[in-house]
Amino acid sequence: MTGGEAGGKAAVVLLSGGLDSATVLAMARARGYDCHCLSLDYGQRHRAELRAAARVAQSLGAAGHRTIVLDLRAFGGSALTDSTIAVPTGGLSAGIPVTYVPARNTIMLSLSLAWAEVLGANDIFCGVNAVDYSGYPDCRPEYIRAFEAMANLATRAAVEGAKLTVHAPLMQLGKAGIIHAGTQLGVDYALTVSCYQADDEGLACGVCDSCRLRRDGFAAAGLTDPTRYR
Amino acid sequence: MTGGEAGGKAAVVLLSGGLDSATVLAMARARGYDCHCLSLDYGQRHRAELRAAARVAQSLGAAGHRTIVLDLRAFGGSALTDSTIAVPTGGLSAGIPVTYVPARNTIMLSLSLAWAEVLGANDIFCGVNAVDYSGYPDCRPEYIRAFEAMANLATRAAVEGAKLTVHAPLMQLGKAGIIHAGTQLGVDYALTVSCYQADDEGLACGVCDSCRLRRDGFAAAGLTDPTRYR
Repeated sequence: MTGGEAGGKAAVVLLSGGLDSATVLAMARARGYDCHCLSLDYGQRHRAELRAAARVAQSLGAAGHRTIVLDLRAFGGSALTDSTIAVPTGGLSAGIPVTYVPARNTIMLSLSLAWAEVLGANDIFCGVNAVDYSGYPDCRPEYIRAFEAMANLATRAAVEGAKLTVHAPLMQLGKAGIIHAGTQLGVDYALTVSCYQADDEGLACGVCDSCRLRRDGFAAAGLTDPTRYR
Repeated sequence: MTGGEAGGKAAVVLLSGGLDSATVLAMARARGYDCHCLSLDYGQRHRAELRAAARVAQSLGAAGHRTIVLDLRAFGGSALTDSTIAVPTGGLSAGIPVTYVPARNTIMLSLSLAWAEVLGANDIFCGVNAVDYSGYPDCRPEYIRAFEAMANLATRAAVEGAKLTVHAPLMQLGKAGIIHAGTQLGVDYALTVSCYQADDEGLACGVCDSCRLRRDGFAAAGLTDPTRYR
């Protein structure tokens, strides 16, 4: 798929460059949406994911792709935005890990809300899921529903009667299920970067939480892991 | 007041540089909060308001002031972020005007939520009001309550039991009431810039909606309007 054939309904798709959001883009395309992909350059450690996002958008026929610059290092408070906080590599532990970025999903959904309103789009897609995940609070279904309720009071579009839907099609899928679904839809996971500390070439560490969830997912799916480890 | 004496509870205050948010900062200071002021450089036409915000933060003893760069011209869709859309100057009319910036308050509140979490602050102050206003959907009380409900599901702080409050102390005040309250608290409105098309020196046009609301407010309050018109 290339070129992003026009004619469908417009949607904004949050695209990080990782495995989950690539799958979501493929799902939204399969449902006929013209997908306007939004990435956030927030000063993340793993900047290689931004180049991955561009590759994924292109390969899955996005109608457009924008990367917004917003340096969350100004606030810090996360291993992903503060170089003095190490990324954990010892396996998932209880509680919310230090890779949690304060209010990141709220900020990204807010930006997607702005773009959706300008595009006249009533649909936002995001790749959050609450099964094989890191326990982030802003990945829970009750959070997504609350954001949607807020969004439907926030905009001129809402006042004029439009109803915004935040789609989180991965919410109840495990990582293996996500990988199966994406593979069937033609996602090339070799293009994606999940590692929290990917190097400039996108090579993965193999030991951070995100790498572990991804590797275990391919194993559980019975598929070859295309990740390039360093 | 200078220096931002420490010791109170921390709060994040959204500070645009205009009349309303300056008043809110004074109110939060009067309630004993250490105020961390947040401004957004979003590519607005009236950039003079950002310099005004810095002056206001200093004069009212903020504990800190940060200006986050996030170029909303990437989305456009507003007279304030798209130079091809003119700022209306003929007086307030029915409906939501073209100066509405899609999802701006949601984006700014989301950023303040991130900073509040990093600071360990449970209070956000913003200057929205729904009396003498431009009809923006994201200035209504039901919107603020919905944002607060979402925020209380979004963060690690919330999961750990903290309760975030979004204070909108101007919500039910008219412009004259706001000016009276701020004057009693020592706000120097000569430092503030409200005009949607203020020039680089901060001189106001006198005819945009924001100028009209402000000028009428001083007249209704029976106070001299310190605004520098061009």
